[in-house]
Amino acid sequence: MELLKQRILKDGKALNEQVLMVDSFLNHQVDPRLMQEVGREFARRFAGDGVTKVVTIESSGIAPAAMTALSLGVDMVILKKSVSSILCEDILQTEVFSFTKQKTYQLTLKRRFLAPEDRVLVIDDFLANGEAAFGAIRLLEQAGALVVGVGAVIAKAFQPGMEKLREAGYRVEALAPVKRMGEGLIEFLED
Amino acid sequence: MELLKQRILKDGKALNEQVLMVDSFLNHQVDPRLMQEVGREFARRFAGDGVTKVVTIESSGIAPAAMTALSLGVDMVILKKSVSSILCEDILQTEVFSFTKQKTYQLTLKRRFLAPEDRVLVIDDFLANGEAAFGAIRLLEQAGALVVGVGAVIAKAFQPGMEKLREAGYRVEALAPVKRMGEGLIEFLED
Repeated sequence: MELLKQRILKDGKALNEQVLMVDSFLNHQVDPRLMQEVGREFARRFAGDGVTKVVTIESSGIAPAAMTALSLGVDMVILKKSVSSILCEDILQTEVFSFTKQKTYQLTLKRRFLAPEDRVLVIDDFLANGEAAFGAIRLLEQAGALVVGVGAVIAKAFQPGMEKLREAGYRVEALAPVKRMGEGLIEFLED
Repeated sequence: MELLKQRILKDGKALNEQVLMVDSFLNHQVDPRLMQEVGREFARRFAGDGVTKVVTIESSGIAPAAMTALSLGVDMVILKKSVSSILCEDILQTEVFSFTKQKTYQLTLKRRFLAPEDRVLVIDDFLANGEAAFGAIRLLEQAGALVVGVGAVIAKAFQPGMEKLREAGYRVEALAPVKRMGEGLIEFLED
């Protein structure tokens, strides 16, 4: 997605070979017009897949996922990282390790929001090691739903998540797949 | 906001006099079309206030705040409850107690995303005791920004937050102010 890549080159910052800062428009400050375009692009790419729910993981994926759900005309479900005292019903959980935060959390879903007939598109801001995406997929499959694909706003294609997901048979669409980065350098994969 | 009130009456559930479950359309499963209408309504109510930033607190406020920011044509800033290892720059923090989760967290903002000339609208899903809203306001005022108002999708008007904010001089707009509730009963304040 050219608009997004240009924005990453303009306002993103590669701190080193692993860390890409995009917090001025994607995950701390958020540009809602860019998110709307991101949502339209995911909706276009998954237009023929009969998506019935968009699922994301709190919290940086919520803005792009909400715009995607709006474009597709379906509901969004937010998988929770911490369980509120009032979320007490029949829930599904799976353990996920976050490399960024170096800790494990329980990804949680209230079972009644996903049904076996659901066709789910998983949207997140970043795809790197794939821990969060595989965690989401485990929960969705526990609920009996079909995962039609994973959409990442940015994928670090040099980390194993994208390849592991594809090897496991999942379709992955990354709007800005980063091939390589380093201080002052951000290089994308060709479309 | 009539559309929202009707949805709360239809799909919300008062578990007791304090707890209103709206997780089928607002904070676990999210209806993005309703959020778009919520965003348009906040934008209409604050149209004359020269808002330059919409600010919310992760994570249930993000969807309505993103739609509000989109309608107003401004950026959104998400105040963080947990600090990522890569969020290392000049930050502002304040301690907030969550009654729902019965724990304290450090609300965090990277200083460069709010400037003294900013006119900020704070959006959240719920307003109850006002702890989160006052925490957000403390951070925003530390950054030197002007808080033009607080918008809550739902306010529990029988809890002290709304009144305390107004007494402190802040404009509060609640799209669905709940006057009273109990098992099977939800009653709104008149507009």
